[in-house]
Amino acid sequence: MNIKSTHKVGLPPGTLVHVGKKKIEQIKFELIEYNQENYKFSEFTSADDCLQNLTLKDVTWLNINGLHDTKAIAAIGEKFKLHPLLLEDVLDTHQRPKFEDFENYLFVSLKLLRLKENGKSFVSEQISLVLGVNWLISFQEERADLFDDIQLRLKESKGNIRLKSSDYLLYRLIDTVVDNYFFVTDYMSDTISAIEEQVIKNPEESVMIEIQALKKQLIKFRKVVVPLRDVLSSIQKDETKIVDNFTLNYFRDVHDHIIQVIETIELQKESLSSLTDLYLSGISNKMNKIMQMLTIIATIFIPLTFIVGVYGMNFDNLPELHFKYGYFYIWGLMIGIILMMIRYFKRKKWL
Amino acid sequence: MNIKSTHKVGLPPGTLVHVGKKKIEQIKFELIEYNQENYKFSEFTSADDCLQNLTLKDVTWLNINGLHDTKAIAAIGEKFKLHPLLLEDVLDTHQRPKFEDFENYLFVSLKLLRLKENGKSFVSEQISLVLGVNWLISFQEERADLFDDIQLRLKESKGNIRLKSSDYLLYRLIDTVVDNYFFVTDYMSDTISAIEEQVIKNPEESVMIEIQALKKQLIKFRKVVVPLRDVLSSIQKDETKIVDNFTLNYFRDVHDHIIQVIETIELQKESLSSLTDLYLSGISNKMNKIMQMLTIIATIFIPLTFIVGVYGMNFDNLPELHFKYGYFYIWGLMIGIILMMIRYFKRKKWL
Amino acid sequence: MNIKSTHKVGLPPGTLVHVGKKKIEQIKFELIEYNQENYKFSEFTSADDCLQNLTLKDVTWLNINGLHDTKAIAAIGEKFKLHPLLLEDVLDTHQRPKFEDFENYLFVSLKLLRLKENGKSFVSEQISLVLGVNWLISFQEERADLFDDIQLRLKESKGNIRLKSSDYLLYRLIDTVVDNYFFVTDYMSDTISAIEEQVIKNPEESVMIEIQALKKQLIKFRKVVVPLRDVLSSIQKDETKIVDNFTLNYFRDVHDHIIQVIETIELQKESLSSLTDLYLSGISNKMNKIMQMLTIIATIFIPLTFIVGVYGMNFDNLPELHFKYGYFYIWGLMIGIILMMIRYFKRKKWL
Amino acid sequence: MNIKSTHKVGLPPGTLVHVGKKKIEQIKFELIEYNQENYKFSEFTSADDCLQNLTLKDVTWLNINGLHDTKAIAAIGEKFKLHPLLLEDVLDTHQRPKFEDFENYLFVSLKLLRLKENGKSFVSEQISLVLGVNWLISFQEERADLFDDIQLRLKESKGNIRLKSSDYLLYRLIDTVVDNYFFVTDYMSDTISAIEEQVIKNPEESVMIEIQALKKQLIKFRKVVVPLRDVLSSIQKDETKIVDNFTLNYFRDVHDHIIQVIETIELQKESLSSLTDLYLSGISNKMNKIMQMLTIIATIFIPLTFIVGVYGMNFDNLPELHFKYGYFYIWGLMIGIILMMIRYFKRKKWL
Amino acid sequence: MNIKSTHKVGLPPGTLVHVGKKKIEQIKFELIEYNQENYKFSEFTSADDCLQNLTLKDVTWLNINGLHDTKAIAAIGEKFKLHPLLLEDVLDTHQRPKFEDFENYLFVSLKLLRLKENGKSFVSEQISLVLGVNWLISFQEERADLFDDIQLRLKESKGNIRLKSSDYLLYRLIDTVVDNYFFVTDYMSDTISAIEEQVIKNPEESVMIEIQALKKQLIKFRKVVVPLRDVLSSIQKDETKIVDNFTLNYFRDVHDHIIQVIETIELQKESLSSLTDLYLSGISNKMNKIMQMLTIIATIFIPLTFIVGVYGMNFDNLPELHFKYGYFYIWGLMIGIILMMIRYFKRKKWL
Repeated sequence: MNIKSTHKVGLPPGTLVHVGKKKIEQIKFELIEYNQENYKFSEFTSADDCLQNLTLKDVTWLNINGLHDTKAIAAIGEKFKLHPLLLEDVLDTHQRPKFEDFENYLFVSLKLLRLKENGKSFVSEQISLVLGVNWLISFQEERADLFDDIQLRLKESKGNIRLKSSDYLLYRLIDTVVDNYFFVTDYMSDTISAIEEQVIKNPEESVMIEIQALKKQLIKFRKVVVPLRDVLSSIQKDETKIVDNFTLNYFRDVHDHIIQVIETIELQKESLSSLTDLYLSGISNKMNKIMQMLTIIATIFIPLTFIVGVYGMNFDNLPELHFKYGYFYIWGLMIGIILMMIRYFKRKKWL
Repeated sequence: MNIKSTHKVGLPPGTLVHVGKKKIEQIKFELIEYNQENYKFSEFTSADDCLQNLTLKDVTWLNINGLHDTKAIAAIGEKFKLHPLLLEDVLDTHQRPKFEDFENYLFVSLKLLRLKENGKSFVSEQISLVLGVNWLISFQEERADLFDDIQLRLKESKGNIRLKSSDYLLYRLIDTVVDNYFFVTDYMSDTISAIEEQVIKNPEESVMIEIQALKKQLIKFRKVVVPLRDVLSSIQKDETKIVDNFTLNYFRDVHDHIIQVIETIELQKESLSSLTDLYLSGISNKMNKIMQMLTIIATIFIPLTFIVGVYGMNFDNLPELHFKYGYFYIWGLMIGIILMMIRYFKRKKWL
Repeated sequence: MNIKSTHKVGLPPGTLVHVGKKKIEQIKFELIEYNQENYKFSEFTSADDCLQNLTLKDVTWLNINGLHDTKAIAAIGEKFKLHPLLLEDVLDTHQRPKFEDFENYLFVSLKLLRLKENGKSFVSEQISLVLGVNWLISFQEERADLFDDIQLRLKESKGNIRLKSSDYLLYRLIDTVVDNYFFVTDYMSDTISAIEEQVIKNPEESVMIEIQALKKQLIKFRKVVVPLRDVLSSIQKDETKIVDNFTLNYFRDVHDHIIQVIETIELQKESLSSLTDLYLSGISNKMNKIMQMLTIIATIFIPLTFIVGVYGMNFDNLPELHFKYGYFYIWGLMIGIILMMIRYFKRKKWL
Repeated sequence: MNIKSTHKVGLPPGTLVHVGKKKIEQIKFELIEYNQENYKFSEFTSADDCLQNLTLKDVTWLNINGLHDTKAIAAIGEKFKLHPLLLEDVLDTHQRPKFEDFENYLFVSLKLLRLKENGKSFVSEQISLVLGVNWLISFQEERADLFDDIQLRLKESKGNIRLKSSDYLLYRLIDTVVDNYFFVTDYMSDTISAIEEQVIKNPEESVMIEIQALKKQLIKFRKVVVPLRDVLSSIQKDETKIVDNFTLNYFRDVHDHIIQVIETIELQKESLSSLTDLYLSGISNKMNKIMQMLTIIATIFIPLTFIVGVYGMNFDNLPELHFKYGYFYIWGLMIGIILMMIRYFKRKKWL
Repeated sequence: MNIKSTHKVGLPPGTLVHVGKKKIEQIKFELIEYNQENYKFSEFTSADDCLQNLTLKDVTWLNINGLHDTKAIAAIGEKFKLHPLLLEDVLDTHQRPKFEDFENYLFVSLKLLRLKENGKSFVSEQISLVLGVNWLISFQEERADLFDDIQLRLKESKGNIRLKSSDYLLYRLIDTVVDNYFFVTDYMSDTISAIEEQVIKNPEESVMIEIQALKKQLIKFRKVVVPLRDVLSSIQKDETKIVDNFTLNYFRDVHDHIIQVIETIELQKESLSSLTDLYLSGISNKMNKIMQMLTIIATIFIPLTFIVGVYGMNFDNLPELHFKYGYFYIWGLMIGIILMMIRYFKRKKWL
């Protein structure tokens, strides 16, 4: 159970260091500008090019994919006057989800969960969002397909997304990430069902290990989701007015979804500990059955072995040995004992 | 343990989609208008017909059965200026119970629980209520018989229900749903009693599975009831004055009932874990008895078998074999050992 | 474990129905009027007679025994302008203890616990108290002896009870009920001590059932007491001034007693789960001892049986059989093995 | 586990009754008056004598040892205008620690813990303190040596104790009692260490009983300390200004000590439940070893016994019996089986 | 499990006593004065020398290594007008981390954790920090290498540390200590992983002891970290303005790190109890396997031993003995039984 922190230790604050894996070769800057009428998409590979093209006249979404080029990130930070600690948080991909209000802009950091290709576990990826009046910057380690749909919708002006400002865009990004959590809860749910079936049918040792592994995944999942609930509470209570009142209703909605996810996680944790109980009782029952079998066999045959032992003795004077049908009488006796025992065990419902 | 979310994922907010099963063929609109003197009931199958007949002069209750016709729902929404997110919540039947204050109207969503026909489990059905000044809209997936009584009472003006406005009607609808929860707690209570009896008489493996299943049902039940408590707190604290002060006393009463339901659920959960303890101790005792039996048999017969083995040896010089009553002496010895053992086990209370 | 609700379901609010058993034949109205100088006691069997004699000049205590005559109760309610929901709560004897402030009067509902005649369990009886300025009404299912002492004290003017108003009387009634809870905790305490002794001496199966039964009683007891704590907090925080500041000190005192009762209950619950642990470890130890015994017997005699088996073989050429003292040598060997084994088991502290 | 309440039941409030054991023959009144220059100590055996000598010019500490003379206590109460409920609390030695603000004076009740002479358990003794402006009354069941040191310090004017008023004296008394709790935690700590060693070395049945007994002691200890934390919070928040701002810093310090004691208790409770786990796993391991031994013996000798049984058969035609070295071959076979088995068990790490 | 308090008991408050081990021979005073342009470092071995050189013109950091010379500490305290209780807390190295606001300066006490040389456990060392306007005093038991880096940074003016005042220095010191906690969580994490592997591979008795030991370490670790969280909350809420608003952002950052540490500890505690479950189920499984083996052996050979016993009987008339191929028939029968049994056990998945 490797729950290591991969925190950068010993560096002075303000030093920009990318904590995490370099996931893509080339950092990319996607600049999307839109208003009710227009939509403009441009892509850059250098921060300077991008910043030169920035006008901030329309609603502006700057989506940055890749975090390993700290200089570029610093340039962006300078342009938008972002606090050095904010940039540090963006680069440190082992942050817990958080919200901070820097007066002129809001900072939200959250985790995107992706099912691994083996379909067995999840990778979490950090997404950092900075929301100003009319602009939003999103930082990702690598491009998430998840946001394609929103870009398409912006381009084709489906829904009323282009009628609204960057605060609504923030909502849509967070909503997309949260919606994705439901895939995780569904996956967990299926796995729990499968384990439950196995526990009832055949409580093998490996089941316990699987249960513990799943519990660990749930704990990690909860660690990602619970702070996000606080993030959303904080957004709703925020007083900067960067998020306008109308949009707050939407955040209330995502908030509800997160609570639903958390409740499901709690429920699944309870299910897992129920399964542990079920498994342990299953093992005890198995043991009981093993012991019953041993007891039945021993209880029937140990007395019989004694009897035949008696007539295997070599006493000069052992009268029964000389009875004509002694051997057959003894068999009769032994069969009688067996039948009696079987009846006894049947009454005890052991057979 | 399938605790899947059936949340609609990936759709933009504001898209009206019915999440749930289509339970009836034809959506129906029941329009009930009443004041102290008059009562008028009309039924429509199209939203437009219904809306044309709507005057809102008297207290108006619009009861909509069936949610699959999203256009009709949208039309109603438009007429009453309902927020798009509210309509979404109405259509998404996997919501947790909630209360929202939209300034001009209040929204309450809750779950009706119905015993399934096999008498073994429960279906939950979502009921959404929108309360305005003098009007109330209720949305259900299919017509709940539960509300027949209230309609009858309105028609025949029993009690003082027609003297009061739509806020009192809201109370009556919620009260009816909550009263129904007591059937569920009673059913749970009976089942727990039955299981308890079985645990004490015969702790079989299946009992544990039943206990876990019941626990799961209780958890689901609690998931339905606990948020409703918050709903009722919120109604009582609401500042819109749509619910007038006099009616608030009634809501306080339902609130108490819900707390009683929740307390009963907690109590039942504690009972179930007591039963788990009892079951596990029952299994251990069973094992102890099995082992006692084995030990008694083995302890008596293993030494005896040794003794008869001794006199089955073929030594040329084994004097006892040639004693005249050797065989009988040995029997005496063996019977003595048996009696001693029995006495010993009796003193130990094993026999 | 029958934890049924006996809530009346499906009836409209405001319908007065007595939920509970009819415990006495004839409802009785005791009217006690007193001030510093005078004390007057009168008893009626009809509500009308009682109400005609009511002057409300002095401090007035109206004690009603029996709840099955709903008309009489309704008449009282009308006279004192009691809210219909209050009357409902009075009649529904399955209420949880509660406090409600109706502006002109306060309502307190609590439970009296009585030891059953078999000395083994408790009956709970509901007492409802309505406190107005200078008057108090108490409703009981049947006459509780508990209040005799207070009536006597009022009559004989012991203590300073007659110097004070109905708020002090309310305190005295609640105090009497709470004092009675200490009998219950003492009974529980004795039972736990008895069980503990048995668990240590002989952990039998029945003990576990007793522990679970007691746990259930404790849970029910707590369910009665915990809401009463809130009742007392509410009285202390109440702003109607029906209870005057001086008397509040006394309520603070009862409040402390209830907290003491609750703490004792929690302590006893912890004791019970300690006993469960102790019991389970006792069973395991018992099993260990059974298995030790089996193992000792088997370990000593199985090898010996093998040895005698060896010399029971019929090989033509088995030299030891023809040794003159072979038989005795073998006995020597076997006794040696036995001694060795006994020493081994002694060192292991099994013997 | 006798957790009886020894609450006085059924008596009207205001009746002064000493609940507890009479611990000393003669109630004693120690009157200490001091200011920066002077220190006067006088001892009385009657309340009247004491009260006549009372001037209240200097800082006055009245220390009362013995509570059984309720009249004397009442006289003191009258002189200082103490509330009757306060006096009741002083006399009822089964109070939980509490703080009450009576406007003109503050009341603090707490428990002194003393190690019993057998060094195995603790007696708790109630100390009640009433603090007014410039005076302090302390009530004890018997004289606690603990306060000698403070009297000495007052007399010899060590430290700056005589420069300060009675609020500082209150602090010093409470501090002395709390410091004493550290002896209890140390004693608990040593006992836990001793038990832990035994659990690891030899998990005997008695250990479990000891663990449970210690748990019970810890629970009782916590019951004494936790309310005291609240007492100290209340003192710090008190608004009467009887305790002046400067002295509050000192109370903050005692508060910290109590939190430290509570944390240690929680830690020790966790240790005890860890020990329970350890003990139970120790028992299971013991069982495993017993069963291993049985299984080894049985697995080796049962097949061998079968083999020798085969050659003990009396068939006319049993060729191996007539082989010249048949007997020795069989021994070879059996030794082979034994060696194989031993190797097998060694590989399984059973031997 | 020695969780002793090493609190000084019975001494009057204000007495300066060093509670802890004397770790270095000679107390040392490092005086560091800096502003944007200058940096001056001087070291003294006497408090007086140090205080004479103190100008307090620039930002001043006085770092004191060694606490056993209480007079020197008192001298420092006098110079800076430190409260006697503060000095006591500095000297008592068994304090829990705390924050106190003394109006003119703030006091922070926290624990530095160091990995012991055996790499198996941790030593905790107390660091006390007093922050005034423009000055900071740090007290340590012995010189921590940890602060070397900060001194170097101050000297070489790396980062912007010299641009800021003593409040930023306070942040840097706390941050360094907190960063160090991540080494502890990593160490814990590795140990847990190692134990997990062993539990799955071979659940030996020693594992349980290791788990319990680690749990104890985690509890102690948590005891150090949790109060520090409160310390940081208090700093953020402090109203003295000694820490300026800009620096508060940095404290918010450390606060986040501490929460991350606490969450990791909670997660690791959950992991450990999962491991306990896993271990116990591992033991049960081991037992099941032992019993299976015994049962298989016994079930196969006990009946066979009975059969050979039958033909070892000495009846005169036992016809099978005289069959020509009787012996071989019997072998056939026995081999048949063996095969049948093996098949049976295979179907039961015991083999």
